[in-house]
Amino acid sequence: MDVNGTPYRTVDWTDGKLQLIDQPALPHSFGLWHTDDHEEAADAISTMIVRGAGAIGSTAGYALALATRQAPDADFAAYMSAAFATIRDTRPTAQNLFAGLDWVQSAIDSAGGAERPDDARDAALAAASSFADADVAACAAIGHHGADLFQEGWGVGTHCNAGWLAFTDWGSALAPVFRNHRQGKQLKVFVDETRPRGQGARLTAWELAGEGIEHHIIADNAFGFFAAQGDIQAVITGADRVAANGDVANKIGTFGHAVICRHVGIPFYVAFPSSTLDTACPGGKQIPIEERSADEVHWTWGLDEEGTFRRVRTTPDGSPARNPAFDVTPAELIDGLVTEFGIFPASADGIRQLVTARDAG
Amino acid sequence: MDVNGTPYRTVDWTDGKLQLIDQPALPHSFGLWHTDDHEEAADAISTMIVRGAGAIGSTAGYALALATRQAPDADFAAYMSAAFATIRDTRPTAQNLFAGLDWVQSAIDSAGGAERPDDARDAALAAASSFADADVAACAAIGHHGADLFQEGWGVGTHCNAGWLAFTDWGSALAPVFRNHRQGKQLKVFVDETRPRGQGARLTAWELAGEGIEHHIIADNAFGFFAAQGDIQAVITGADRVAANGDVANKIGTFGHAVICRHVGIPFYVAFPSSTLDTACPGGKQIPIEERSADEVHWTWGLDEEGTFRRVRTTPDGSPARNPAFDVTPAELIDGLVTEFGIFPASADGIRQLVTARDAG
Repeated sequence: MDVNGTPYRTVDWTDGKLQLIDQPALPHSFGLWHTDDHEEAADAISTMIVRGAGAIGSTAGYALALATRQAPDADFAAYMSAAFATIRDTRPTAQNLFAGLDWVQSAIDSAGGAERPDDARDAALAAASSFADADVAACAAIGHHGADLFQEGWGVGTHCNAGWLAFTDWGSALAPVFRNHRQGKQLKVFVDETRPRGQGARLTAWELAGEGIEHHIIADNAFGFFAAQGDIQAVITGADRVAANGDVANKIGTFGHAVICRHVGIPFYVAFPSSTLDTACPGGKQIPIEERSADEVHWTWGLDEEGTFRRVRTTPDGSPARNPAFDVTPAELIDGLVTEFGIFPASADGIRQLVTARDAG
Repeated sequence: MDVNGTPYRTVDWTDGKLQLIDQPALPHSFGLWHTDDHEEAADAISTMIVRGAGAIGSTAGYALALATRQAPDADFAAYMSAAFATIRDTRPTAQNLFAGLDWVQSAIDSAGGAERPDDARDAALAAASSFADADVAACAAIGHHGADLFQEGWGVGTHCNAGWLAFTDWGSALAPVFRNHRQGKQLKVFVDETRPRGQGARLTAWELAGEGIEHHIIADNAFGFFAAQGDIQAVITGADRVAANGDVANKIGTFGHAVICRHVGIPFYVAFPSSTLDTACPGGKQIPIEERSADEVHWTWGLDEEGTFRRVRTTPDGSPARNPAFDVTPAELIDGLVTEFGIFPASADGIRQLVTARDAG
């Protein structure tokens, strides 16, 4: 996608380093972040310099590739084992993290691993790059398959950021929106803030403004109001992990939106590349839910009136907070799973069809 | 209620002036705000120095009493007519505003109005005071009637602030919680932030901390998560207006919470004094919904790390926002209306029973 006319990927490889778009600085400033150290890359995942299912996956892949370059020949296997664990342990919910790691690890193993470290290094970087490219292609295909879900003039709701910043490029939930826009179909996107971290207000709004797509930021609380009064005709979100029965873990608040959609009769779609699928996980109850620091609830970051980026505390000192980062939306509340292989029913049977398509394709 | 051992009412009359607790400064500092000017009092309502259904009603009554003292004898009727309109037009949704005004206006008229200005002045202040006292008594009774809805150890969800700061004292939704606590029954309150103005995070949390009641602040988005996983056994909110069919207008986001409660099988109660009832309004569709400044979505107020109260902008400059302040929860989603006359079904029949009880009582 373009930023002021220059094309960028959210996660990229340049001059021997991993390059990320620095997401906490958005929307107030646009900056790039570089590292050639896998531990710094892992920190970038856990501190959410990079976030979003696909972007985490690509970053994890490149991080493991960086580790191969740091690993000494004499101690390659032990170093890589520790590096893999460091990267894997950054965040517990998003399946793409593990998919990216496994993809690159397989390439390392196939190339000889500790037996042939230089071959492993080349294979790791090639694999990280192919994993990122596959994420871009999958998201572009999601845009293609999902574009017809929306009609001219519709209000479309979304939650969190599942646009190009959440993936290597294009995004999942927003890919059909971007595609509709480029085809000349006008949509109006209702962007909820997505407290506590505000990925909607900060990132989705910035992406849509950059593309010139009509949108309104709303408090998360206002979603039901606009859905009930007919301003929103469809909702599409991303996913952080999809279980074998079609249950979906996604940003906290997704479940409530899906319940409201069903109540008022609005279709609710979930878009994700097949790398988000975890067929080893039977259902949503088995998906681990990350609980993040209470400080994310207590403090809000933004630009003050003098243009300084700082945080303010909105809560009393004496009050504790809870901060689960994801929730689970049961398959029965989802009207379709939009993937790079087409749109599938949210059910165990739909997941089987998706797996068949993926393994064939 | 007590603040550090001193009893306060949210709205009070002292030394010939209206006294309010300055709510935007909470929870970071506790201060009192005074005026003897009805236009300043009206501004305090529209700028939300005072907010909450009952507190607005009492403030409106005292504001009209202040106006009688400002009105010149020679021009009493015209002055009071303009003052009434100024106070009435501050906020459109909360029914208590109109109830407080009508109560004091009736007393003025009964005392002779412009014919006998001094009698009208005395009657206005006495009426404003009795309206405020009635609000306190009604809320205390709500606490009594609602206390048995919750069992020892339950997690109780609420939304916005419907505690003592939202009324003259005691509050509506929180009155049963306060009463349970004073009776030794332990509850755990899930306090959602209530974006965009954060009345839950700022005010409800501060009230509960002051009372020593166990609570956790959660993002509005996290409500569904805790409800679905069984941490919350019941939800109780306040109301800004209740229609003749039992539909309830309350802080934006209430509707979504009610939908989630029904979906997961948790009872959802609404507590309000009968002054919130608008029998002239047939249903929720006829309740006007205030849309407030988009700045409330764009900017968040709080204490910075140096302890300065300031605001930060969380959204991109190029993105518009929408900010409806209330939504309507249909009667069918409400498991009981908790009032000073007892608990009634949320339905046209239940409202008729409430009116009968009120008119008898």
